[in-house]
Amino acid sequence: MPTAAVLPKGTFSDEAARYFFQGVPVELKYQKMIADVFKSTARGDTDWSVVPIENTIDGSVSLHMDWLVHEVDLPIRAEWVFPAIQNLVGRRSELTGAEGGDWDPSKITKVLSHPVAMAQCYEFLRSRLPHAELETLSSTAEAIRTVHANPGLGWAAIGTHTAAADYGLDVLQEGVTDHDNNYTRFLLVGDKPFDKPGASHYKTSILITLPEDYPGALHQVLSAFAWRRVNLSRIESRPTKKKLGNYYFFIDIEMSLDTVLLPAAIAEIEAIGCQVRILGSYPSYPYEG
Amino acid sequence: MPTAAVLPKGTFSDEAARYFFQGVPVELKYQKMIADVFKSTARGDTDWSVVPIENTIDGSVSLHMDWLVHEVDLPIRAEWVFPAIQNLVGRRSELTGAEGGDWDPSKITKVLSHPVAMAQCYEFLRSRLPHAELETLSSTAEAIRTVHANPGLGWAAIGTHTAAADYGLDVLQEGVTDHDNNYTRFLLVGDKPFDKPGASHYKTSILITLPEDYPGALHQVLSAFAWRRVNLSRIESRPTKKKLGNYYFFIDIEMSLDTVLLPAAIAEIEAIGCQVRILGSYPSYPYEG
Repeated sequence: MPTAAVLPKGTFSDEAARYFFQGVPVELKYQKMIADVFKSTARGDTDWSVVPIENTIDGSVSLHMDWLVHEVDLPIRAEWVFPAIQNLVGRRSELTGAEGGDWDPSKITKVLSHPVAMAQCYEFLRSRLPHAELETLSSTAEAIRTVHANPGLGWAAIGTHTAAADYGLDVLQEGVTDHDNNYTRFLLVGDKPFDKPGASHYKTSILITLPEDYPGALHQVLSAFAWRRVNLSRIESRPTKKKLGNYYFFIDIEMSLDTVLLPAAIAEIEAIGCQVRILGSYPSYPYEG
Repeated sequence: MPTAAVLPKGTFSDEAARYFFQGVPVELKYQKMIADVFKSTARGDTDWSVVPIENTIDGSVSLHMDWLVHEVDLPIRAEWVFPAIQNLVGRRSELTGAEGGDWDPSKITKVLSHPVAMAQCYEFLRSRLPHAELETLSSTAEAIRTVHANPGLGWAAIGTHTAAADYGLDVLQEGVTDHDNNYTRFLLVGDKPFDKPGASHYKTSILITLPEDYPGALHQVLSAFAWRRVNLSRIESRPTKKKLGNYYFFIDIEMSLDTVLLPAAIAEIEAIGCQVRILGSYPSYPYEG
């Protein structure tokens, strides 16, 4: 069975991976850190890596992009989005009010979570649980594990459904993040091709390094896409790490490389002296509840 | 004395803030989470917020940018860069080999740190301390505090000089991050103006929302800068959170708003139907060892 390296059990990445691989025979291989995820696939121990890449609490987006560019050479095989929903998790039985019924906010003495997850739920915590102590841990999975290990204290965690189920805890309230429309993008990277039905469209991700930094350089690069009416869905400059102020650009294009227009645009960009590295041309899967 | 809200004592942000405010009379007010940092300044309890904004381990860059845009309305007053250096910290006395001298790597049983700091030192840990257990905590400051609280076990942490000094621990090895040329950008935001000598140049940060997403829209916006030979040092698209696929752009311009060219370019961009929000026009300070 093919294998995919993913961050630890019960993390947000684990939940997104389980969702994505529904009906696809893939074995998840849990790794302690994102570096282990990438290295596992680069060594050939796993077929793919699951990498959170935008708007994520599982690590640092820029670190993950840097790894993808500097440390490994693994093509992107698929992309999916997954709602960045956090939940309030605890033991309903120990949090029920005197008159029974649902959980009673005043019974919660402490809320544990990852610092970024905590920040994403700031308004919820302030309005609903203003009296609760807040404690930050290294991951939401660790927070749920800690609540599980300390019964009878009125502790709750902010974390995933998956980890709540794994530890037999109750989801007291779903979707406690302050903004609803928060989606995290995940990439599947690896040498092995991947395909499953249900893609909404195809995308191509490239990395462009400018020959030198001069005003209008990026504008010139974008011209090659603009006059062809090729749509870009994301653009981001990142330092090259060789010199401060020396940048490359990540560009996501809403088109497969397997067309006439895109290779022609890339050839033009190379002709004006830019380095173009193709990070992958891959299907994009929407979230389907 | 003016006050600045900053993430907890001993974090990387704390170290960068102490460096930046050398010789400037400012009192640091430590806050538990980035949300508290922003809110403190927005409420008027502090004059400025210290916000890590690029390539940071203190939280999530995109979350910080989102707060700056959606949750508060605080102009950027200054920018500085600070080297993202991590150090191996412990008690030299308990890690010295039988023959005395310096610390002995084989005596280190466990290394504690923040998951992203750990990932940034992956090669160092693998080559120098392959036998050590790795444990992740919510911050490097927390890791150093934990090592301080558990003497005699051969534990070490990856973290800042500042936190090592605060807890009376030794810096066993400086600069254990795998890449040398790692700088973190910090912003100072708040209603109160800020100025100190030593700026290398001025910058202006703007947020552009396109009227609709059509191919070439960004190219058209960049034309306004390109033909004026105005240099952009950073560009990044971020989802608006209103609708998936709806983006705005952060653009950093290497020029003060207090010139002829820049207001003219912005007026032109507004004239083609874009919304432009000026996040700040401010001095940029280089790192000076």
